[in-house]
Amino acid sequence: MVLRASELTVGDSRDEVVVDNLTRTQIVQYAGASGDFNPLHTDDLYAREVAGYPGVFAHGMLGMGLLGKALTSWVGDGRLTSFGVRFRAQIWPGDTLTARLSVSALRTDEGVPYADITAVVVNQDGAEVIAGNATARLDP
Amino acid sequence: MVLRASELTVGDSRDEVVVDNLTRTQIVQYAGASGDFNPLHTDDLYAREVAGYPGVFAHGMLGMGLLGKALTSWVGDGRLTSFGVRFRAQIWPGDTLTARLSVSALRTDEGVPYADITAVVVNQDGAEVIAGNATARLDP
Repeated sequence: MVLRASELTVGDSRDEVVVDNLTRTQIVQYAGASGDFNPLHTDDLYAREVAGYPGVFAHGMLGMGLLGKALTSWVGDGRLTSFGVRFRAQIWPGDTLTARLSVSALRTDEGVPYADITAVVVNQDGAEVIAGNATARLDP
Repeated sequence: MVLRASELTVGDSRDEVVVDNLTRTQIVQYAGASGDFNPLHTDDLYAREVAGYPGVFAHGMLGMGLLGKALTSWVGDGRLTSFGVRFRAQIWPGDTLTARLSVSALRTDEGVPYADITAVVVNQDGAEVIAGNATARLDP
């Protein structure tokens, strides 16, 4: 699927539930896939008794990855040219996360159309856990 | 580990090999962890015969995740406040990827010290596959 500039308007948006009830297992899977085995994310005892957190929490990059998946699902493969985020709050096991994407600008650079997209992740309480921006190359 | 502003200078840098000989299996692991099962990344026949690529390639977000891991290893847990990248080139099975981090600025915001960090990923041929910037909160 490819987004066309001619079919897109500033303000066009899309919500996608990127994870429903995040499990500790998915966090462990992310540790294995990324090679980031910091026990804060996988060892509840360590997170609580050594680090003083209520328990394990997700890698920030897992949240960013889920947001990235929502972006590439929307704009198509190989169309995302830049992607940046701010990490606002932690992501916990049990969270249900929704990616909210919205076109903030449409522009042309050297004849190629691009969309700037506001991309945030909110949890089941409506709290923004990740706030970001992305740019995607469009078809005319 | 925590970085201290008093011990850091603009230009301080760190290289880390984040993956040595990326395997198709690690790409499949990333698909499972992120939920992004686009067959471009896991099905060689699809990638070649349907999509016209030489074969499967990694999710861009896997490369970004590996760079994020190098960043958090350096600046400490929960210290990364923002992180943005441009996707420059594809990452292929067999690639060996090095994260190159370098302090581009040191500054204070409302009394809190921060480092701006240039963060790129290069492959075994020296090609830049991801180019990014990050900001980390420091201790004084």
